[in-house]
Amino acid sequence: MAESMRGLHRSHRCTELSEKNIGENVTVMGWVQKSRNKGGIIFVDLRDRSGILQIIFEANDCGNENFTKAETLRSEFVIAVVGKVEARSGAVNENLATGKIEIRAKELRILSEAETPPFPIEEDSKTKEELRLKYRYLDLRRPDLQKNLILRSKVANVTRSFLTEEGFLEIETPMLTKSTPEGARDYLVPSRVHPGNFYALPQSPQIFKQLLMCSGYDRYFQIVKCFRDEDLRADRQPEFTQIDMELSFVDVDDVISVNERLLQKMFKESIGIDIPLPIQRMTYAEAMDRFGSDKPDIRFGFELKNVSEVVKGCGFSVFTNALEKGGSVRGINAEGQADMPRKKIDALVDFVKDYGAKGLAYLAIAADGSYKSSFAKFMTEEELSALVAAMNGKPGDLLLFAADEDEIVFASLGALRVEIAKNLGLLHKDEYKFLWITEFPLLEYSKEECRYTAKHHPFTMPMDEDLALLDTDPGKVRAKAYDITLNGTEIGGGSVRIYQNDIQEKMFEVLGFTKEAAYERFGFLLNAFKYGVPPHAGLAYGLDRLVMLMTQEDSIRDVIAFPKVKDASCLMTEAPNIVDDKQLKELGISIASEEM
Amino acid sequence: MAESMRGLHRSHRCTELSEKNIGENVTVMGWVQKSRNKGGIIFVDLRDRSGILQIIFEANDCGNENFTKAETLRSEFVIAVVGKVEARSGAVNENLATGKIEIRAKELRILSEAETPPFPIEEDSKTKEELRLKYRYLDLRRPDLQKNLILRSKVANVTRSFLTEEGFLEIETPMLTKSTPEGARDYLVPSRVHPGNFYALPQSPQIFKQLLMCSGYDRYFQIVKCFRDEDLRADRQPEFTQIDMELSFVDVDDVISVNERLLQKMFKESIGIDIPLPIQRMTYAEAMDRFGSDKPDIRFGFELKNVSEVVKGCGFSVFTNALEKGGSVRGINAEGQADMPRKKIDALVDFVKDYGAKGLAYLAIAADGSYKSSFAKFMTEEELSALVAAMNGKPGDLLLFAADEDEIVFASLGALRVEIAKNLGLLHKDEYKFLWITEFPLLEYSKEECRYTAKHHPFTMPMDEDLALLDTDPGKVRAKAYDITLNGTEIGGGSVRIYQNDIQEKMFEVLGFTKEAAYERFGFLLNAFKYGVPPHAGLAYGLDRLVMLMTQEDSIRDVIAFPKVKDASCLMTEAPNIVDDKQLKELGISIASEEM
Repeated sequence: MAESMRGLHRSHRCTELSEKNIGENVTVMGWVQKSRNKGGIIFVDLRDRSGILQIIFEANDCGNENFTKAETLRSEFVIAVVGKVEARSGAVNENLATGKIEIRAKELRILSEAETPPFPIEEDSKTKEELRLKYRYLDLRRPDLQKNLILRSKVANVTRSFLTEEGFLEIETPMLTKSTPEGARDYLVPSRVHPGNFYALPQSPQIFKQLLMCSGYDRYFQIVKCFRDEDLRADRQPEFTQIDMELSFVDVDDVISVNERLLQKMFKESIGIDIPLPIQRMTYAEAMDRFGSDKPDIRFGFELKNVSEVVKGCGFSVFTNALEKGGSVRGINAEGQADMPRKKIDALVDFVKDYGAKGLAYLAIAADGSYKSSFAKFMTEEELSALVAAMNGKPGDLLLFAADEDEIVFASLGALRVEIAKNLGLLHKDEYKFLWITEFPLLEYSKEECRYTAKHHPFTMPMDEDLALLDTDPGKVRAKAYDITLNGTEIGGGSVRIYQNDIQEKMFEVLGFTKEAAYERFGFLLNAFKYGVPPHAGLAYGLDRLVMLMTQEDSIRDVIAFPKVKDASCLMTEAPNIVDDKQLKELGISIASEEM
Repeated sequence: MAESMRGLHRSHRCTELSEKNIGENVTVMGWVQKSRNKGGIIFVDLRDRSGILQIIFEANDCGNENFTKAETLRSEFVIAVVGKVEARSGAVNENLATGKIEIRAKELRILSEAETPPFPIEEDSKTKEELRLKYRYLDLRRPDLQKNLILRSKVANVTRSFLTEEGFLEIETPMLTKSTPEGARDYLVPSRVHPGNFYALPQSPQIFKQLLMCSGYDRYFQIVKCFRDEDLRADRQPEFTQIDMELSFVDVDDVISVNERLLQKMFKESIGIDIPLPIQRMTYAEAMDRFGSDKPDIRFGFELKNVSEVVKGCGFSVFTNALEKGGSVRGINAEGQADMPRKKIDALVDFVKDYGAKGLAYLAIAADGSYKSSFAKFMTEEELSALVAAMNGKPGDLLLFAADEDEIVFASLGALRVEIAKNLGLLHKDEYKFLWITEFPLLEYSKEECRYTAKHHPFTMPMDEDLALLDTDPGKVRAKAYDITLNGTEIGGGSVRIYQNDIQEKMFEVLGFTKEAAYERFGFLLNAFKYGVPPHAGLAYGLDRLVMLMTQEDSIRDVIAFPKVKDASCLMTEAPNIVDDKQLKELGISIASEEM
């Protein structure tokens, strides 16, 4: 039977007690982590969010009734204990914050009994994730998940304090809004009052925050849920949280500056990591050229080298064919890896095939300077020496080459360098390397749709010096867009926005929107632009991913209280579920009969 | 043409400048509030979120080109001005924070031109709300709306700081969740991956926050959007914001204590109002008896008096009939209102009819002690004297009576006392009278459904002393539920929760849920209760309504950036709208053909 806590008041959380409290009478409450009877003394580890505290029950102190009750205690019982803080009689436990003290119990109340949980409540759980997610309320008791959610709360809090001090206002934007095309699929919400009409859940507050700038709010932020109905990956959820901001009367440098200070404060106050400022910046073009990626991991080297010029006349047709088709030949010097076994090299060749590459050419330089290579036989001695020299090849190095159209070469080698670093154990999770990527292309050409699409979004400002190219060579236009990356992951991104109606209309034109289509979708934004718009810019972070990196977890599910799994369902609540016909009828919708 | 701000950096917001800055060169940016040419000098009022600053352009200082540009300035143009701070040459403007200075312009850039807005951007707008909501981005430029949203941001910020200091963690709960019955209609979200299944948007994070307590998070809060698909009233929106909290190992007093300190801090730091603590408490029973309302406005008196005993044998059949049917006769003494014209009294009689009353009986006591009354002729002199005495009637007073079943008497007189106070101008918006209402009934009987329904929600704990009544007389059970009211409005409410599986199951039984039905809907909560639950309690505020009262607005639309109107649509974005057939097809739903 559950007892009442009437008359009792918790005086401390478990680890709020220390040697300073010895001699005090206290009341503590929490969960039984474990309980054991050792020679007539019952030892209980009491757990709460702060940690563990040892309680001892002896019949002499607590009386027979309490002692008998204490004998029934099992894991996960919720109890209240009144007792006295004492120096620990047994061995001090250096692993516990409270390892030098214990509570000698005088009174015990069993507030709630507990069945044996379906899996143990412990750090680094071996239990498979599905079971843990079904019993998420038990999984969330594990100290590592608690640590993650406490950190997440801290990050949000530090962010809000900092931005508030910097003059940002937190302004809530609607969740029930209008379906607009921003690349991903919308979640829709049927309207009961307007049958046949739908709200959409926001993919981001993009348009609303731009309108707030039009309205003169100057600096806006929001930590806000956004929604995308896409197929899930390890780092995606149907609903995710953004730290979203927008600033007026600023250009790229202003946004970067305030965000560098935000990141510095966030990492220092949340996990004690110093981020030296300024954070390194790199243009998109340089990032692709050197790392084959627009979010390069710069914790290690293995940079890409373009050797197209060096090999253009060589006898290896894989190289020369790629060049003739307008592609490139690029390589990575995996320094010191000349002895990599053939099997591992083959695994790397397989690895790059996922990125569209037909294969990898390799050349290992033995200690004696001789080559072991998949293509040496096709080249002259001079050609090989020139290639090795271009790659800064030294005895002991392993050179790996891809030859294909640029896109494939970048994707393959960009992923390959990370794979090699991973295999070599170079991806240290406690090393935090930030990098700004700037000057993204404004557009990318969609072969599927035979038109340009916005790389960032349709409100992104072209770089001043490229404006004229919008008419002549739109694919070359660079944007005032920037991403902030951490250890090879994009944690945030944003842009300076177009604030001139004429440029915005031209942008829609380049994207192939008719004026009517643009007005139908964004009419209120385009209309707003008629009444005086300040230059403005913004940025948004993915909070889930950011906290995942800060907690060094591999999945964002480990930093979300109630996450969904791959099929976008919640294993605990079993959402989504079927609903009453009455509800559907009220909404004026019906479930389409299954199509074959 | 829009000019670029390249090379310029805003140095100050408008009202960050004062006499201290005289002689400094500054760069300011903002909107033209108004512009006038007076004898070859152009005066511009520049506006930003901070306020207004005067700029003067003279051709001698800024050159002809800038001066010519300045001549084209019109309201709502966005400009950047470089100039020097000077003491105001003309008359000091005491109404402006910057009234003693002006900026002598050296350079002007027109960042954005503006058409004439469809209504003037001014305080206390006379423009009708529909037009303002259509052009919300312009409406939001008005200083009063800006003040409201800035205050709202402040309130949220103070709340978060306070709760964080008190050991609360902000933890996000899901937006895409399971449809559960909590009284109101859910907004549904069709699932694409599971056709025929639906998520529901949360009406509140109730169950999740209780689960977080089961998981040991100890103190949770969240400022979070909630959704109810109900027909709207002035103070309702389809999506609204709650300050939501839950605490473990606490009882009623603990929740009240932390919330009183929260309110005190919130009102002090946001609007400079001192709330003396402790806040007055009143039981539900007393509130109904004295004020006819569970959210009494205590800024004024006019309390209800039960005169049933006094009139029970009288000759006025309206009174005695009501008593015979089990009702009551109660009155209000509208002190000093004996001279209220008959027309106004008639209006009050009409007024109470909206609350189900058949009418009002009145008795005015003239200065000479004589009565003017609608029912005096039915009573003896003694009966009248006894009644007047019971009402503390003095010469000059007006006594008003209702006789009916209790529910109608309370509703009528409860509303009547507020109506009279309103007519007399006693509802001072700058007077903040808080009141806790406690000991709410656990259940209310639904005549419609012929069963008890939960007054608060099905997880509310009965009062310890009433537990046994659950079996014998459930309608009499009082709950550990509490509301916090301000000036007659409920701004928040909550309860201690049931944490014992047996009581929870009994509660469902009393509510007429089969065990199966209860498990189908709340199975994960009931299961969680098997593994050790702490006693816990919580409270939630309606942030929109709270800020409305703090800003002394009449509508929550005036404290929400992008509100919806009565039919739950957004006049600016025109959400909800129709969507592509492709989208519906992907979701496996179709629009039901209209039924006649």
